[in-house]
Amino acid sequence: MGRNDGSEDTVTAALVVIGEEILSGRTQDANIAYIAAHLGKIGIALREVRIVPDLEREIVTAVNALRSVFTYVFTTGGIGPTHDDITTEAIAKAFGVDVAIDHRAVEAMRKGYKDADLTPARLRMARIPAGAELIDNPISKAPGFMLENVIVMAGIPRIMQVMLDSVTPRLRAGRKMLSRSVRVDAPEGEAAPGLAELQGAHPSVQIGSYPFFEQGRLGTYVVLRSVDRDALDRAHTELWTLIAAQGFKAAESER
Amino acid sequence: MGRNDGSEDTVTAALVVIGEEILSGRTQDANIAYIAAHLGKIGIALREVRIVPDLEREIVTAVNALRSVFTYVFTTGGIGPTHDDITTEAIAKAFGVDVAIDHRAVEAMRKGYKDADLTPARLRMARIPAGAELIDNPISKAPGFMLENVIVMAGIPRIMQVMLDSVTPRLRAGRKMLSRSVRVDAPEGEAAPGLAELQGAHPSVQIGSYPFFEQGRLGTYVVLRSVDRDALDRAHTELWTLIAAQGFKAAESER
Repeated sequence: MGRNDGSEDTVTAALVVIGEEILSGRTQDANIAYIAAHLGKIGIALREVRIVPDLEREIVTAVNALRSVFTYVFTTGGIGPTHDDITTEAIAKAFGVDVAIDHRAVEAMRKGYKDADLTPARLRMARIPAGAELIDNPISKAPGFMLENVIVMAGIPRIMQVMLDSVTPRLRAGRKMLSRSVRVDAPEGEAAPGLAELQGAHPSVQIGSYPFFEQGRLGTYVVLRSVDRDALDRAHTELWTLIAAQGFKAAESER
Repeated sequence: MGRNDGSEDTVTAALVVIGEEILSGRTQDANIAYIAAHLGKIGIALREVRIVPDLEREIVTAVNALRSVFTYVFTTGGIGPTHDDITTEAIAKAFGVDVAIDHRAVEAMRKGYKDADLTPARLRMARIPAGAELIDNPISKAPGFMLENVIVMAGIPRIMQVMLDSVTPRLRAGRKMLSRSVRVDAPEGEAAPGLAELQGAHPSVQIGSYPFFEQGRLGTYVVLRSVDRDALDRAHTELWTLIAAQGFKAAESER
């Protein structure tokens, strides 16, 4: 489940976050949740995330481990102009291809920079691995790129987001994951036996249980997820039967 | 660099976040940044994070890949009472040991639950792999555990945080990572050549460059990190020489 299983309907992804600043605790990542939600909406299931430091060996290892397993691998971070931006070189190394200044990337950057500002440091951002397609960056112009099934994006959230929009039409989309969420005013420990039975009866629906503590009360969000609307509806109906039988208070939830 | 290199000073860690809800975009992770900062303070360098779904195979694969490489592996999530809480079983499987109700864990839970509330579902939380040491949970009582170098904690942030405090005195601490941060009012592309040279001259100091866009201005946070205070001070002094030579505005920063 979740990995490529040969079905046309299953499109999967992994994300490699390249960022020493996240591993050091300096920065709170803002991209994972955004990318996860975006991919879910277009029918691509994010199945794994790795956060690695700005070290070539770590990036190469992660990307090569993941690109043979998942339909797509996204990366964020490390494509800026400074010495610690080594993602482009690492991706080229992972694929065993050369990197060079790409005239299409230079043209794109001319829209944002005067010639005098296209310094050697900034032109590092026009270095693209051989065979890659560019990904538009309407904000700061220096592009991302897609090499086979690996999509390389900036780490700055608003730039990552426009790159994700730019590349989305090129991605193969699967069946969209549908979900229903119910807030049950009972602790997980009490809701558990019924949920285990419900999961057993509905193998094509993923049933998640998330405890919460709000306004002094313990409760459980029950989230049903499936690509099959009928199966989802059946499980949802049975969840409510279960809730009624156990006398719990509950409500449909947006979360 | 960053991996176990046999030096007594280098203590490393990886974190495995077990959570379908994070991969689906439903929940924004709140634990990674907290754990990263906590470990940094006690001299343990977080070198990799993986987020995996609540699937036994994925958890076993991640934990076994990481526990042989890093001094410690922390996990969060999946140790509650419901059917989708499978972390404990997965960790036992990764180590090839049995799991059973642990009388010490039951005793701990009696402090939080009346006997009538210690239902079979809740007693799942007292199942502990053979050979593990318990980790205290003063909040909701159900313990985490430490098996060899793997530390298994809850996913709910405030419970994870008390477990992390409970286990901290048992961890071997390395030399603390020290850092200095300078805010330079110049875009990364202009600061880049000097920083590359600075990095070349100070191999024992990790020099990171983080662009920012604040109040309509582009700038760069330059962060120097090292376990060696003298080396850090030398690089810091040279950074200021560089800033002065280039005529940039800059200031010491808390970030």
